[in-house]
Amino acid sequence: MSVYSAPWYTPAVQRILDLAVEEDAGRGDVTSAAVIDESQEAEAEIISRERAVICGLGVVEAVFTRFDWRTRVRLKVADGDPVQSGAVVASVRGPAAALLAGERTALNFLQHLSGIATVTQAYVAAAEGAKLRVTDTRKTTPGLRALEKYAVRVGGGANHRADLASGILIKDNHIALVGSVREAVRRARTNAPHTLRIVVEVDNLNQLDEAIEAGAEGILLDNFQTRDLTDAVKRVRERRPQTVVEASGGVTLDRIHEISKTGVDVISVGSITHSARAINFSCDIHASDGARDS
Amino acid sequence: MSVYSAPWYTPAVQRILDLAVEEDAGRGDVTSAAVIDESQEAEAEIISRERAVICGLGVVEAVFTRFDWRTRVRLKVADGDPVQSGAVVASVRGPAAALLAGERTALNFLQHLSGIATVTQAYVAAAEGAKLRVTDTRKTTPGLRALEKYAVRVGGGANHRADLASGILIKDNHIALVGSVREAVRRARTNAPHTLRIVVEVDNLNQLDEAIEAGAEGILLDNFQTRDLTDAVKRVRERRPQTVVEASGGVTLDRIHEISKTGVDVISVGSITHSARAINFSCDIHASDGARDS
Amino acid sequence: MSVYSAPWYTPAVQRILDLAVEEDAGRGDVTSAAVIDESQEAEAEIISRERAVICGLGVVEAVFTRFDWRTRVRLKVADGDPVQSGAVVASVRGPAAALLAGERTALNFLQHLSGIATVTQAYVAAAEGAKLRVTDTRKTTPGLRALEKYAVRVGGGANHRADLASGILIKDNHIALVGSVREAVRRARTNAPHTLRIVVEVDNLNQLDEAIEAGAEGILLDNFQTRDLTDAVKRVRERRPQTVVEASGGVTLDRIHEISKTGVDVISVGSITHSARAINFSCDIHASDGARDS
Amino acid sequence: MSVYSAPWYTPAVQRILDLAVEEDAGRGDVTSAAVIDESQEAEAEIISRERAVICGLGVVEAVFTRFDWRTRVRLKVADGDPVQSGAVVASVRGPAAALLAGERTALNFLQHLSGIATVTQAYVAAAEGAKLRVTDTRKTTPGLRALEKYAVRVGGGANHRADLASGILIKDNHIALVGSVREAVRRARTNAPHTLRIVVEVDNLNQLDEAIEAGAEGILLDNFQTRDLTDAVKRVRERRPQTVVEASGGVTLDRIHEISKTGVDVISVGSITHSARAINFSCDIHASDGARDS
Amino acid sequence: MSVYSAPWYTPAVQRILDLAVEEDAGRGDVTSAAVIDESQEAEAEIISRERAVICGLGVVEAVFTRFDWRTRVRLKVADGDPVQSGAVVASVRGPAAALLAGERTALNFLQHLSGIATVTQAYVAAAEGAKLRVTDTRKTTPGLRALEKYAVRVGGGANHRADLASGILIKDNHIALVGSVREAVRRARTNAPHTLRIVVEVDNLNQLDEAIEAGAEGILLDNFQTRDLTDAVKRVRERRPQTVVEASGGVTLDRIHEISKTGVDVISVGSITHSARAINFSCDIHASDGARDS
Amino acid sequence: MSVYSAPWYTPAVQRILDLAVEEDAGRGDVTSAAVIDESQEAEAEIISRERAVICGLGVVEAVFTRFDWRTRVRLKVADGDPVQSGAVVASVRGPAAALLAGERTALNFLQHLSGIATVTQAYVAAAEGAKLRVTDTRKTTPGLRALEKYAVRVGGGANHRADLASGILIKDNHIALVGSVREAVRRARTNAPHTLRIVVEVDNLNQLDEAIEAGAEGILLDNFQTRDLTDAVKRVRERRPQTVVEASGGVTLDRIHEISKTGVDVISVGSITHSARAINFSCDIHASDGARDS
Repeated sequence: MSVYSAPWYTPAVQRILDLAVEEDAGRGDVTSAAVIDESQEAEAEIISRERAVICGLGVVEAVFTRFDWRTRVRLKVADGDPVQSGAVVASVRGPAAALLAGERTALNFLQHLSGIATVTQAYVAAAEGAKLRVTDTRKTTPGLRALEKYAVRVGGGANHRADLASGILIKDNHIALVGSVREAVRRARTNAPHTLRIVVEVDNLNQLDEAIEAGAEGILLDNFQTRDLTDAVKRVRERRPQTVVEASGGVTLDRIHEISKTGVDVISVGSITHSARAINFSCDIHASDGARDS
Repeated sequence: MSVYSAPWYTPAVQRILDLAVEEDAGRGDVTSAAVIDESQEAEAEIISRERAVICGLGVVEAVFTRFDWRTRVRLKVADGDPVQSGAVVASVRGPAAALLAGERTALNFLQHLSGIATVTQAYVAAAEGAKLRVTDTRKTTPGLRALEKYAVRVGGGANHRADLASGILIKDNHIALVGSVREAVRRARTNAPHTLRIVVEVDNLNQLDEAIEAGAEGILLDNFQTRDLTDAVKRVRERRPQTVVEASGGVTLDRIHEISKTGVDVISVGSITHSARAINFSCDIHASDGARDS
Repeated sequence: MSVYSAPWYTPAVQRILDLAVEEDAGRGDVTSAAVIDESQEAEAEIISRERAVICGLGVVEAVFTRFDWRTRVRLKVADGDPVQSGAVVASVRGPAAALLAGERTALNFLQHLSGIATVTQAYVAAAEGAKLRVTDTRKTTPGLRALEKYAVRVGGGANHRADLASGILIKDNHIALVGSVREAVRRARTNAPHTLRIVVEVDNLNQLDEAIEAGAEGILLDNFQTRDLTDAVKRVRERRPQTVVEASGGVTLDRIHEISKTGVDVISVGSITHSARAINFSCDIHASDGARDS
Repeated sequence: MSVYSAPWYTPAVQRILDLAVEEDAGRGDVTSAAVIDESQEAEAEIISRERAVICGLGVVEAVFTRFDWRTRVRLKVADGDPVQSGAVVASVRGPAAALLAGERTALNFLQHLSGIATVTQAYVAAAEGAKLRVTDTRKTTPGLRALEKYAVRVGGGANHRADLASGILIKDNHIALVGSVREAVRRARTNAPHTLRIVVEVDNLNQLDEAIEAGAEGILLDNFQTRDLTDAVKRVRERRPQTVVEASGGVTLDRIHEISKTGVDVISVGSITHSARAINFSCDIHASDGARDS
Repeated sequence: MSVYSAPWYTPAVQRILDLAVEEDAGRGDVTSAAVIDESQEAEAEIISRERAVICGLGVVEAVFTRFDWRTRVRLKVADGDPVQSGAVVASVRGPAAALLAGERTALNFLQHLSGIATVTQAYVAAAEGAKLRVTDTRKTTPGLRALEKYAVRVGGGANHRADLASGILIKDNHIALVGSVREAVRRARTNAPHTLRIVVEVDNLNQLDEAIEAGAEGILLDNFQTRDLTDAVKRVRERRPQTVVEASGGVTLDRIHEISKTGVDVISVGSITHSARAINFSCDIHASDGARDS
Repeated sequence: MSVYSAPWYTPAVQRILDLAVEEDAGRGDVTSAAVIDESQEAEAEIISRERAVICGLGVVEAVFTRFDWRTRVRLKVADGDPVQSGAVVASVRGPAAALLAGERTALNFLQHLSGIATVTQAYVAAAEGAKLRVTDTRKTTPGLRALEKYAVRVGGGANHRADLASGILIKDNHIALVGSVREAVRRARTNAPHTLRIVVEVDNLNQLDEAIEAGAEGILLDNFQTRDLTDAVKRVRERRPQTVVEASGGVTLDRIHEISKTGVDVISVGSITHSARAINFSCDIHASDGARDS
């Protein structure tokens, strides 16, 4: 289905795009203004300098055309495509000054989102064969959540809840304040929107039993050892087979294969959004003959 | 001097803060609304789960007080302080629902900025003893530049140019378009604001000679081997001792010590902003007796 | 629990407040500027001119203090309180010009939100005795959704999904495009966030059977006759007792009592947000002795 | 003349459109993302489910094209056209996911503005034959004033002052603070912009005499019985025939015909904006053959 | 009355303030960051370097406190006060870095608004003795209209219409398009909001006669010679004594005294807003003993 | 090179454009709405009423097309062109109501920016023959800096630093706080970004000597008599020939020729931005035959 469906239309993305253009080029580009001929036409090639899953080409287009509407971006690959080092992912033609002014902003989005898509794809590959989904968390970079969650989908992952309004997740702090898992679940059943499943985070097998009994529709196993994950899944399947079981906390690329064998339905990983290494891209610009295609 | 001076007052920071609050809590927090008593008072402790240089406490304060003006944040450390795993960096007291709603947004800023400060500090420490500065680049996360450059200062680094308007940097793309280093420098001298030094990026020793001759006031040595860096510094010192020499490109934590021995004045590192690993923080919330201090 | 919890902190509410102040008083108040002495202190009483459930006092406070920080608002009732005609709901003291400038904007919010709370309360009262919730829909006034959903809670109702991201609702249009209820539900199970229940809207009893079989976790019975609602509930309870059953479409105040007897869990009503009649308030302003309390 | 002239170009309308898109679809549409094929093309028909005067088609166009620029909206009627139940007012062709995501936001504007145009038209029709204008007031929905005043014009009504800067209206509160009608009018003559008529609101015939004497150029008769309206108009016409006479307060659809016989020039009605019932529209979406017209 | 009443509360003023802070200090103040000790306390005196009517002190306060909430501004004069060269208009105490960062933005507002107030006052003084008002026009600096119109009031002038919605002014272009003054006035009577006077701009005495006959309630005499102004006033007074007569176009400080003798009610002057010379202010900052008053 | 390169793409310019449209036409144009036929097509000619250097045509285009996308603007000259009184600078064709609504906003930008370009050109001409640049300062109109600095370039001037982040300028206030020129320069060398030259403002020849000795890379001679300027330049050239020398303060059009003979490299002038007289433009609108070119 349309799992890639990009959030370009949202005001939130427009605002982060505005902020990004403003913070780099909002006062003008003094170097290009000083040395580049205003009538100079040029062509730029954006090249991946390492293996990667590409993500963010729509933002690249948006950035360059904002600097000058005569700029033309040609995509050579699509979001989600894997590329090798050296691959040209897009070429851009237009006034040289516009290409120079937009380059860094465009690449800053592209390197960040491709970094997320690439590491997500690695996690998904490591869990291959198991019937589960790898998801993100709410541990995202401030202001970039919609784009980062899109990058996770592009990398083959799935999204956990979008925000505090699109999922009930009763966590340790809620339980501490309410007094018991049972009471917290009871309140959620009474008060929460009926379109949301009631998911409970548990720290150990005792809490798990209590959550199952209370009628949780989803269980998040927080920071469980692999062996305990297997036990936990077994208990859930025996007593409430429909319950969704999620493993979270301390999920590294090293561990994900063994976790994927435990039978959990969902593995959520914070680091794919908050600690993804940026992909290295370069942008080579050279004079073009100036004949614009219109 | 006031190298830490935080950018809280800028509209750009206000806007990213708005975006961050909006994207996580803009539609409300359905879990807390369902299970937490509205009159419940609580206290939260924000704890670092690893060694780190802390950065972003001002944003933590701003986030929590925005959710409820009765919230009180007490900082236990200051931006720039190194902490051990387990250290409480701040405590927050106020309505439980406000603490729960603000937690993730506050921590998303704190983990990201502390990650940058921490890795910057590691680079600075590795270069200790040399008379140079470690700086960031313009490879920052879109929308977060002012905050990330602040985090670099907090970690002991220095800032490179803030944006395209606050530094002349003639790069390979400019040279390709203009035709020669000499002509590019000449144009910059004629046209660029007189408050800016003219810095030229060079890829090899031949270009370096040309740049020195043309009158560059700063030289960026891009992707040079360590040995070539030493050669380059020597050539510059012989011919134009005042020129600032910067090494950039491929600077890893492994290499920085040897680079620091080459005599360069500046080492700029993109990865400290675009690929810093987030620091792990937790937020423990428990009921308080409800006696607010006013 | 904190079902009233007001959305004042959200940027979206700040923006609608900005728009409202701007559109009425953004160019100044020429009448007051011309006839009112700048040093004149005054007191205003905001009075309900009919029976109502009050909602929106937080916005009233925000509006008046924005015009002049010396303004003091004293609330006489709280959001959710029922009042009689003639009841003073708040008094405001401050510069006369500020009270006159803010009056209409404050009352426009108050009359609208109290209108929603009041009609919601009437629906809830008419359904009393049944174990069900009365909810809103996404048919809200553009720009005011967070405030209107708050008013529904204040009136004793519950909220349906906040937006397109916080609930899976497979409607007639989806079914037409996908081909069958079964296939639509299958896709939702595979692709939708695991924190959301899968709810299916059905138009008749045949579709209902198909939805139950496909594993829907919630059923929305759209525009069903009362008798058919009873039948539908029976079928659901026999086959999947856990399924949430919602009646929607054509729910008027006249019909809600009989619908509440059918056993449905949820009745959702669009008109409580999109067609609520505004409550009539007046604002009486008179000179005060000028002794401000500080 | 161009009484319909729509306010689409204003930043205020852009902002309310932003808010509306953001609040419903800002986090994505999880249902469509899960069940609809991304390449699926579709066609939607927007159908009025009752008799109405249509208003808001420009916003419908703006909403759909914002979600996907490939979307094509074809209007079947124009703003101001009366339609019967069942009438198709617009058809939309484009990616199915875009139609599904935009539907509710588009309809929320259309149902609200058409509701205002429709009820305005009913008031205007009831006053037919009299030489007067039916106008709105400043009792509008926060954030929507420009659009609501446009809807009033579309329904055949006229606009009262746009805001506090575009008309002098001396009301009971001003008179109470200033001390007398006479003094208030005198101050207005001295201080108010010379492009504005001085209009005075009066509660009874004594105040009316005072206002005429003081030189009011317009009189607003607030909450007058029908008989008193006739008396008041007579007094005004005898003494200052040029004065504009307006009836306001308690104007219902039942009463408007008799009020229209009293000779007043203007009848202003708050309920046409603040309490208009939304018109019922549906949006039927079905697969199209995918051949886009370009 | 409250003719000074400042527009600080409006979102438009907030936005221009945001833009101003952003454009000067949005990336930080590199000089102060480099040379000023962060803990340094200082005191600044803002001094007028020429005779002036002061305007804009409220913005000065807003700017400095935005940079650092510990900053304290003490006003020595009030908006509207005339000062001599050398007069201290305000002192500011706070962190030295905040004073240095805010100085230019604060002074840019102050010098501009005081320039307008000062020149307005000169025009008003030159017309003294005549019973008329000197007003601004809509020829204002983009984005600053509310503040500039406030400065005009502070200088003793009055405001013409605030915008295109708060006054009917039939100009040469309208007349050319409609065909005749008569028809234009007739349409305005039928269609324009009843709270607005119908003002007609005329270029010569023939048009004047036509406008009077058509029932214009105000006449703008555009670019009339002084002698023709006298004639025109006479004609208006004879035939419609109530009509407001305004002279506009080519009004210089040299001519205003003679124009004021012609009997016109209003003289509107574009140059007081669009061409006012800025007043020269300086800001002297010196170290303070650091004892903050709280 | 591309010294004209216009800042249209920046969010800051979009925001000031928004503010300008909003403040004049945000509530609609009541005169045109009342008297102009909605289907009326028209053509407007924008004519300069005096000799001028034109600047701001890009904003003129942006303003008119925003009011109605069918509007077509044809530029007759380009930014930077000198024109005589009576010259048509642009013609606009489109709906009459759109031309009337946009006229004032467009002209307010055009008259302001052309005023700056024109006066700048006069300063540049007066300094002709000398090898120096005439620059602006940071004394700009709040919110308009990017546009005003563009107008300076269009007039043949150069830009001084864009903001507080793009230049080190140690002024009298810094020196007073730090204690000495020497120490201030030392700190700047240690802490300031290495892409910026260190410029020091001096009030007299003694300070000049100290600054040269301390290693300043640029010297700003503040309020020097012409004779002292000559002396100062001589001293600098003797001791540090590379240093950039700038004269500032009290630079009038009368004095600039003699200052240009002193040998300074830069003359910066605040009045070209903060006190430029607006150029007089008119906009003549007449009916067109209605055949739109598409």
